[in-house]
Formats: sequence, C-alpha cells, structure tokens
Amino acid sequence: MAVRRVDRIPRTDGEARERRLARGARLRGYLDSLLSDDQRLLVVSNRGPLSFVHRRGDDWEANRGSGGLVTALGELGRLAPVSWVSTAMDAGDRKAAAALAGPAEDRRRLEALIRQQLPGQDMELRLTDVPDDAYALHYGTVSNPFLWFVQHQLYMLPYDPQVDDQLIDAWRNGYSVVNHLLARAALDASPASRPVVMLQDYHLYLAAATIRQERPGSLLLHFNHIPWPGLEAWQMLPQNLRRAVHHGLLANDILGFQTDRYAANFLTSAAAFVRDARVDRAARSIAWRGRTIYVRAYPISLEPDALVRFARGADVAARREALAARLDRAGRPRLVVRVDRLEPSKNVLRGFLAFEALLERRPELRAQVRFLAIQSTSRETLPEYAQYAAAVREVVGRVNGLADPDEAPIWLLDGTDYALAMAALQLADAVLVNPIVDGMNLVAKEAVLVGDPVLILSETAGAAEQLARDSLMVTATDVAGTSRTIEAALSMPTSERQLRARRLRAGVREQDIEWWLGRQLRDLVAVSEARRPPSRPLRDTLRGFEPDLD
Amino acid sequence: MAVRRVDRIPRTDGEARERRLARGARLRGYLDSLLSDDQRLLVVSNRGPLSFVHRRGDDWEANRGSGGLVTALGELGRLAPVSWVSTAMDAGDRKAAAALAGPAEDRRRLEALIRQQLPGQDMELRLTDVPDDAYALHYGTVSNPFLWFVQHQLYMLPYDPQVDDQLIDAWRNGYSVVNHLLARAALDASPASRPVVMLQDYHLYLAAATIRQERPGSLLLHFNHIPWPGLEAWQMLPQNLRRAVHHGLLANDILGFQTDRYAANFLTSAAAFVRDARVDRAARSIAWRGRTIYVRAYPISLEPDALVRFARGADVAARREALAARLDRAGRPRLVVRVDRLEPSKNVLRGFLAFEALLERRPELRAQVRFLAIQSTSRETLPEYAQYAAAVREVVGRVNGLADPDEAPIWLLDGTDYALAMAALQLADAVLVNPIVDGMNLVAKEAVLVGDPVLILSETAGAAEQLARDSLMVTATDVAGTSRTIEAALSMPTSERQLRARRLRAGVREQDIEWWLGRQLRDLVAVSEARRPPSRPLRDTLRGFEPDLD
Repeated sequence: MAVRRVDRIPRTDGEARERRLARGARLRGYLDSLLSDDQRLLVVSNRGPLSFVHRRGDDWEANRGSGGLVTALGELGRLAPVSWVSTAMDAGDRKAAAALAGPAEDRRRLEALIRQQLPGQDMELRLTDVPDDAYALHYGTVSNPFLWFVQHQLYMLPYDPQVDDQLIDAWRNGYSVVNHLLARAALDASPASRPVVMLQDYHLYLAAATIRQERPGSLLLHFNHIPWPGLEAWQMLPQNLRRAVHHGLLANDILGFQTDRYAANFLTSAAAFVRDARVDRAARSIAWRGRTIYVRAYPISLEPDALVRFARGADVAARREALAARLDRAGRPRLVVRVDRLEPSKNVLRGFLAFEALLERRPELRAQVRFLAIQSTSRETLPEYAQYAAAVREVVGRVNGLADPDEAPIWLLDGTDYALAMAALQLADAVLVNPIVDGMNLVAKEAVLVGDPVLILSETAGAAEQLARDSLMVTATDVAGTSRTIEAALSMPTSERQLRARRLRAGVREQDIEWWLGRQLRDLVAVSEARRPPSRPLRDTLRGFEPDLD
Repeated sequence: MAVRRVDRIPRTDGEARERRLARGARLRGYLDSLLSDDQRLLVVSNRGPLSFVHRRGDDWEANRGSGGLVTALGELGRLAPVSWVSTAMDAGDRKAAAALAGPAEDRRRLEALIRQQLPGQDMELRLTDVPDDAYALHYGTVSNPFLWFVQHQLYMLPYDPQVDDQLIDAWRNGYSVVNHLLARAALDASPASRPVVMLQDYHLYLAAATIRQERPGSLLLHFNHIPWPGLEAWQMLPQNLRRAVHHGLLANDILGFQTDRYAANFLTSAAAFVRDARVDRAARSIAWRGRTIYVRAYPISLEPDALVRFARGADVAARREALAARLDRAGRPRLVVRVDRLEPSKNVLRGFLAFEALLERRPELRAQVRFLAIQSTSRETLPEYAQYAAAVREVVGRVNGLADPDEAPIWLLDGTDYALAMAALQLADAVLVNPIVDGMNLVAKEAVLVGDPVLILSETAGAAEQLARDSLMVTATDVAGTSRTIEAALSMPTSERQLRARRLRAGVREQDIEWWLGRQLRDLVAVSEARRPPSRPLRDTLRGFEPDLD
C-alpha cells in the first residue's frame, strides 16, 4: 500500500512548461520596461538569500536560506540584475560585508562564492552592518515578540502586550534606526533617480518613507508576508506607532498582501488611523498627500517543477522507503500528516486534540491510522513558545500512552529534514493544515504538488482564499469539527480524493511563484506608466463552503 | 479642597427639561404610530426588570435590577403599554411566574407589587419558565463563557476556545432552546399579526427567526449591548454556529449596535459569512431573502436628571462627606478614580501598572495623589476571572507596600455601593476608563454628569465614538502612554478641565437615554411605513485625536 503511493508523484506537464517559458519572457519584458540601462532592481529584506561563515584566511562558507521569502525571490537574478540589501545578521555576515567592501582580491573571492551559490544569476548582495544594540531592539524586542504577536493574534489581551517605555525606546532606537539604515543602503546601491525597490515584510514598515523622501520619483512596492489583521489587533499599538506604521507603508506605490482579506483589512485600518487618507475600497486605492497608493493581493507560492524534481530525487526516495518500511511494520495504517514549526499560531495543539477525540469516538482507528507530525522547534527562548511546546507534548504523551513507537498513534518526526517532510506528504492520505492564522502556509501547496492527499485546511490560513473549493475546510478553534473532518477525509473515496487533489494541483501550478512575481512586476509597470495596476481580486472561494447548522 | 468640589454638581437646565418634555411627547407619538389599539410593545431579554423572592404565603419581595439594559428600558411602560418577556432566573422568579399565571388573587397581589416597583407604568411582566438544564447550558456554557469571551476578545487563541461536542450540545439543547422558548412567550404575549418587538443582547441571537417564521409581518429590532468585533473574532465560531448567529439576527428589520464601528463590523461579517446576503455599506443595509435589514448605531446612555437627583441626595452626600474626611486626613491629595467590575476586559491591571509607573517617575506624587478604585467582584467562579483578580491584587499590594490605609496610593473601595461610586466621581480630578473593549461603558457618561473630572478614555470603549473629542484618549494596551496621560490630566489647568467637562456633559445630556430610545422608535416607524430608517452615522471623533510620533 505504502509503496503504491510513490506513483502519485505528478509528472511535469510539457504544455505547462511551455507556458512557464513564455511567462519567463514576459517577466523579463516587465523588468526591461522598469529598469533603464545598467539599472539594477533593488530587493530589501531583513534576511538576505545567503548567510556566511568565515573559518580562516580565504576559507569561506555560504549557506542558502530556506525561508519562503528567500525561496520566492532567490532566483530573481536570472531575470534581471538585482541588488539585494539585507542586514548582516551575525559575525560571519559582517565579515563578508567587510570583505565585499574591501580589497579587490577579497571581494572577488566572495563574489565567486555567491555566484556558485546563486548560479546563473546577476545578484549583488549588499549586507548592511547595523549596530548590534539597534539590531537587538529591532529584531528581538519589536519585530518578533511584538509585531509578529500582534499580527498573529497571539496575545492574551487582559495581560499582554504591555506597551512600556522599553518598547517605545526599542521602536525609536532599534526598529526606526534599522529601517533607516537599510533604506540608506538601498539608496547607496542605486544611483538611479527612480530606483525600483521591492521591500519585504514586517521588519521594514518604515524604510519606504526614507527612500521616498530622498528620491521622490522612486517606484516602491512593499510585500507583507504575514497577516494584516483587522482593526482590533492594530488598536493594541499606541496611536503614534500605529500611525507611523501606516505612514511608512503609504510611502510605497503598491502594497502587496497575501490575500484579498488582508488587503481589505489594510484599507480599513488606513481609513481608521490615517487622518488625511481617502480610501477607495472599490478601486482598492488610497489617496494620500498628493499620491495614490494601490493595495493588492499577491498570494505567494512555490516553484512547482523544482519541488517535483526534488521530490523525485534520491534524498526523498530514501526517506520514503524508510518511512514505508516502518509503516509496513506498523501494519500499513492510513496516514494523516502535518508539517510545521512548533509555534502557537500553527495550532498543532487543537490538531492533536481533534485526533484524540477521533480515537475516542472510534477506538478501532488506533491501530489503523497514524498521525505523522513533522515538527521543527521554533523560538524556544520565548516563554510563550516553550509553554506551548510543553502543552503539545502533554497531549502527545496522553494519546500515545505507553505504546511502542510503531504502535503509538502520533509519530513526531524531525521537521528540519525537508526531504523527510516531502516523503511524508507523498505518503499521506490526509494533510492537516489548521493554523489559527497564517500569512499563506506553503505546506498546503507543497502537499498537493508532491502527493494527492485530502487537504484539510483552516479558513484562517492565507492559502484558504485559493484552495478552499477543493479542500475540506475547518475552523481553527473547532476541535469537534476538525475531528469529524479528519474522519471524513479518511473515508473519502479515492476517486474524489484524486479529483480534488488534481484540481488543487492545477491551481497551484497556475498560480505559481512566477505568477506571484509577474503580478507584482506588471502592476509596477502600470504605475510607472501612470496606469492603474491591473491585478484583480482573487475569486472569493471562502463563502461557498460553509454548511448550515443541521 | 474636597468640600469645594461638591459645588461641581451641575444644575438641571430648565431649557433642557423643556426639550426633554417635548421629546417624551415625540416618543409617545412614535409608539402611537407603531401600535394599534390595545397592542402592547414587546420587550424580550434574558433578565427582566424585576427579580422576585417569595418568603411564605403572600410575603413577596421584588427587586429592581441595576444593569444598563434594565435601567435603559425600565421606564418604557410610562410611554406605552409594554409586555416584557424574560426568563425566570431562579426559584423566586419561577414562583412569581406561576402566581402571575395562577388564581386571580395571587395574580393581583403580584401585579400590585410590580406597580409599586415600576410606578406610573403599564408594564406587564412575562417571566418565562425554561428548563433548568437548558438554561444552564444557555447561560453558563454558551452566553457567558463563550459569546461574551469571543465578543470581548478575552481568549488566548493558541489555547482557547476549544470548540468541542459539549459546546455544540449546549448550543443545540441550551442556547437554541431558550431562544425558541422566549420567542414563543413573546408570540403568546401578543395576538397582533404585526407584533412590535425589541429584542435585547447576545443571549437572544436566534429568537427573531422564530417570531419571523410564525408572524412574517412582525416589526423586529434587536439591540446588541456588547461589542460586535471584527471577522477574526467571529472566525473562532464554527462555521455553522457563526452562520446561525447571522441568520438569526437577519430575521430582524433593524439591528442596533452601540457604535458605528460595531455596526460596520456587522456589515463586514454578514458579507463574509452569509452566502446569499447583499451588503450595501453606504446605505448600511443588507438585502437577504427578499427582505431588507437596516444596521444602525444607537449608543446607549443614562437618564441625566434622575442621576443628578440621586447624586444630590442624602445617600451620596453621606458618602461624599465620609470620603472627604478621609481625604482630609490624608492631606487632601488629588484624586484619580475608576469604577468598574473587576473583570478582565475592564483593564484595571494596566491602569494600576500605569499609575505605578507614574509614581516611579515622580515619587513626590506618592503623597499628593490617590487612586480610588471602586471595584465590584464579577463571575468569580470562572477561573479566568479569579486569576485576573489575583494578578490585580498583586500589583495593588506591590504599589501600596506596607503603607497605612490612608497613606496607601491605591484605595480599593466597595463597588456594590453605587452611592459611594457617585460620591467618588464627584470628587475626582481625573476618571480613568480604559477598557480593552467595552460595548459602551456608562461610567464615562456618569462621570461627566455628576462631576467635572478630566476623562481619560480608551478608544476601545464604545463611549469613545461620542466622547473622544473632549477626553484624553489612550490606547488600552499602552501602559507608558496611560501613565503620561494620568500625569497630564493631573496637571491640566482648571479652566480647560471645566471646559472639556462642560462640553462632554452637554453631549451626554443631548444624547441621553430618551434619544437612544427615540432613534430606535423613529427608525421602526420608518420601516413600518416602508421608508429607510433616518438615523445617521455618528460623527467620527476617533480619527482626530491621534498624535504623530515625535
């Protein structure tokens, strides 16, 4: 049974490849139109595509990041000359920054290393050295424990957050400072009077304002990878911080969000918090201080061919065989799989509770089903994360009891092994993606690209706007409903499962990472020609799935 | 100093009284137009205006409720014949219900008691006996721990709520059942083919549907006393519950909310969750299944003359003198006052933390200022409430240390003594009303009616939409900002304080409880004549106050 499943790996479709080649040409066309001769496209993000380790002398190592942002933009240098501005995150990065700015010999050595890691690309890295203390405040006080928590609704409001002088100080002397330094680095990287800049994510809400002030003609797009929640969440920020965030973002020409709902939320929060903004909801634009800002959804995605290639490779095959052997020993149970960082917004706790309720309702499934949770730890130094991990472990312990490893209903596997994760998704009968809130959630897209499981998806995952129609949708807080939906997924006829997976896969292949990039570039071209960006709202797939109460 | 302040009690304004008399006539006019001969206006709420105790034989006692809802509607029987349908909350109520339905002698005795408690009113009480177990599920599982928490954003989302079979069962066999029984009781109370019904609050989201089904021509208005949050909060309800709530409410002709923002939130949630609803944001109406539903804001208020009369009475005077004497002993400090139930959404914790930060910044204020917190306990059986109360007590203990009672910076006083609360508000230099979220918050309105303090108000109190302009506004989570705002309030020149208080008072006197009721009745008359309800959005006072980051 487990072996048969390997055949599920979908083939690359020749026609689709043709279409993607045509797309590549279109992207180059957009970039040609945006950039003058010798002009480089600027990308600005907190973390760059490579991190560096300096051993000694000329012994350098460069490692490619694995995050969604880096993956999404990491091939951009194939299409146009790119300068990527980011912070030097540690001592290795800082040494690399110094080497890149130093004697010709050092520079050439580093550049060769970068070319080797990013082959076929014209990609210049601009690692920006920011003061340690400012960076600690930016990253460790404002961005991750505060903005991330606000935007993912992780606070227990009666107690947290407590906005105190320390946070305000971190905002002024950390977040603002780093934003300003990265903006300056971007300006230094391009002499153009109209630099074209793609700013990334919640670390950089203020950077566009500095660039706009210095070069008013700049063409600026900010893409926000994480959720943009409704008013209530933003009302946790003191009024002046909240307004600074909105003013900073309104210095852009285009604001990109993962979903239409986040884009709509931004229009609402700008209308509520920016005194002199005029919001046009129908046009999805904001008139502010003599400029027009367009607000659009660009749901992020993957490179399907590359992923399928990887999924067919030897690394994944080895994991798949090992996993299949273990499943054989366990009597070839059906498989529910989830893949995520162990972090409170991913909702692994309620996922296990739902599985526990299923086993209580149908004890015979204890022998016939396994829940494979491919988990990586995350931000363990934050007490909220440690506490959550402990609560999860308690439920796992309760469900598994004293069973032998292969007999235990829940298998916890190492989420830092990406090949293992892909192998598990290939073998899955159902994949559970039930975040409380999530900017996009790429596991949902990976799952249908490498396998054909039933996708169980919470509507509060960003991916729901594209994938609701052919997934089984759940409410994140609904343990009872999730439990019944896992049951329904396991009893879905093969033909229906495959049909749904095929349609989901077709959608993900259509709206892939080049589509994501293409929509942004096309919209930037439109703005550069004083036209309205043409990108339309996504079709609303969320309203359709809600059942009436019986 | 404390004694002088007694003069602050504002006089009743003759002109304003004239205006209110004219208003009373207008209200009667609306009711005449709404009700045919012999037809009674129906009010339906969970709790009725009186609760009953039966000692023995004919020894009955009736007590008038003190909640905002009962106060707001408790004089309605002066204007028109009213039948008020509510649940029999305990054994006394159930005995009263039986007596009212029983032999003529018992009925007459009870009716006399009701007339005595509600003098000058034609008010019939319809206490509805609902099964104990259904009521326990309705009140103790769904309404208070679930809907209240959802609508006040009190959950820590990574952990709670966990929607399980028990909650779904409580919804079906408790919440639905009680809604249906109260709707049936309302239908029984009026033979009219077009009953006019005012439904109250979050306990009754489903009742209108039963009435509409039975008597399609009914004229139904549901007023929601608590916040209507944005989409994220409603996404905690399973899809079928969420839709049942919205369908239930859309059975009304008019939906009333405390603020424009809550009304706007309802338009958004209906658009997101009700498949076949067509929402017109500009008209604030929803077309659904052949009917039009209007969504309006009716910010609730007080009866100013009655309150001022009470504040001038002997009970309040006695408390005021005792308090003034104690303040004299303490060296006549300046006074910050808050009055609330000790409940997590009221944010007393951050209020004390802000005060603590102020005393740390300016130690000399320890002798010169007292923070009088008039607190009543609330729902102590809920663990969340008990835990919150403990956290509050810890901060109070830390601030007060080992100081003698009069020297302690924070004085905790008994919030069940309403006269004491009014006395404290009269003496206050500043009143802190900083809820994390609050449907309205009447303390803010009481404070400016009985005294003239600086009002420090969080924008997430419903009252902010009316009172922002002349209050000092704070963000509920902003301990640092609240601390500085308390300092600013204490150093505000008397003339400015009085000017602001005067303007606030004028606003509250203008938009009083009759205005609240009048807007609803006027809108009902419009609907009964197939016209659009004329009530306009309130002026937006919230955007004006936000300072830029310096």
